[in-house]
Amino acid sequence: MELIQKLNWRYATKRMNGQEVPEEKLDNILEAIRLSASSAGLQPYKVFVIKDAATKEKLKEAAFGQPQLTEASHVIIFASWKDVTQEKIDDYIGFIASERNIPVESLDAFKANLGKLVDMDAEQNFKWSSRQTYIALGTGLVAAAFEEVDATPMEGFDNSKVDEILGLEAKGLSSVSIMTLGYRDAANDFLSGAKKVRRSKEELFELV
Amino acid sequence: MELIQKLNWRYATKRMNGQEVPEEKLDNILEAIRLSASSAGLQPYKVFVIKDAATKEKLKEAAFGQPQLTEASHVIIFASWKDVTQEKIDDYIGFIASERNIPVESLDAFKANLGKLVDMDAEQNFKWSSRQTYIALGTGLVAAAFEEVDATPMEGFDNSKVDEILGLEAKGLSSVSIMTLGYRDAANDFLSGAKKVRRSKEELFELV
Repeated sequence: MELIQKLNWRYATKRMNGQEVPEEKLDNILEAIRLSASSAGLQPYKVFVIKDAATKEKLKEAAFGQPQLTEASHVIIFASWKDVTQEKIDDYIGFIASERNIPVESLDAFKANLGKLVDMDAEQNFKWSSRQTYIALGTGLVAAAFEEVDATPMEGFDNSKVDEILGLEAKGLSSVSIMTLGYRDAANDFLSGAKKVRRSKEELFELV
Repeated sequence: MELIQKLNWRYATKRMNGQEVPEEKLDNILEAIRLSASSAGLQPYKVFVIKDAATKEKLKEAAFGQPQLTEASHVIIFASWKDVTQEKIDDYIGFIASERNIPVESLDAFKANLGKLVDMDAEQNFKWSSRQTYIALGTGLVAAAFEEVDATPMEGFDNSKVDEILGLEAKGLSSVSIMTLGYRDAANDFLSGAKKVRRSKEELFELV
């Protein structure tokens, strides 16, 4: 199917050529991220979309000089909730009730179930919220490929520096992963054109 | 774009009708999972594809009776590496060299970099490998939607029971998330037809 062709086309682009991603394609990629699945639909993260050149320069430093940070058209930063509070759950329940036009009390059982997250400590909350951002990252990578926009998922950066650059501490967030968006610089990217390496079906899957 | 329409169509299906997912669609969804991005391309997980009725019944018990486990056509279980060993890194490096037909020594810097994973303790390894499986989960959810196959991402299950059912301990794996695949039972699913609730662009994204 078309999606498989696009997934074969994508790769973790190491060099980009500075070309800008058109607004419409960017909007589609962000909309896919917004529609991402997450546990209980809570979307326990924020997504920063960086176009500003000076900020990209600082991010590049925090990412040990990796060139995609400044060669990308847009740098997307996924930052997860450091803690799940009762207030956040209450807000979310109120939001669902209002969106679906149903009494807030009809969500009491669902709300009680989400209380488990409030009872966890901050470390467990962050572990959980970080996993959710990786669903959004995965969705974003597929959407970028679908739009034939190159993307690089990145974990190799100094999280505390990125948090400082974006002022995340005060927002109760911490950076988890980065996705640069742009276009491959095929002439200078050693990975461009290299065969995609993936484990075989037989190795990856076990049928029961 | 087409992908956005499909993402709006999907939802976390709570009841399925037992209808079987055709082989071709299943193959496409699994192939998308196989092509998923992961940190350094390591794919530090295995994916179990359960069709066997007796195993589904046991999994349903381990998932506190949630009906999708037996109403689904296939139950996909993502299980992450509990530890990253030097042996696994060496195997992976050898595999890349063989797939790309390049000398193994040309990957020395890459291999040294992956040594950081070996130096981490098992808890950190599992935290890292689990995040990678969520990219695969996200990719699988998008691919299922693209094929108009319903899917439910699930975290609400007893991990140790699932590990026992699939004999994961002996394989150095632990279960992280489940994705059931099948077709919605619209008449009995309270969520079918409910408005999709997602945070607004203004709330989710911050432009810099």
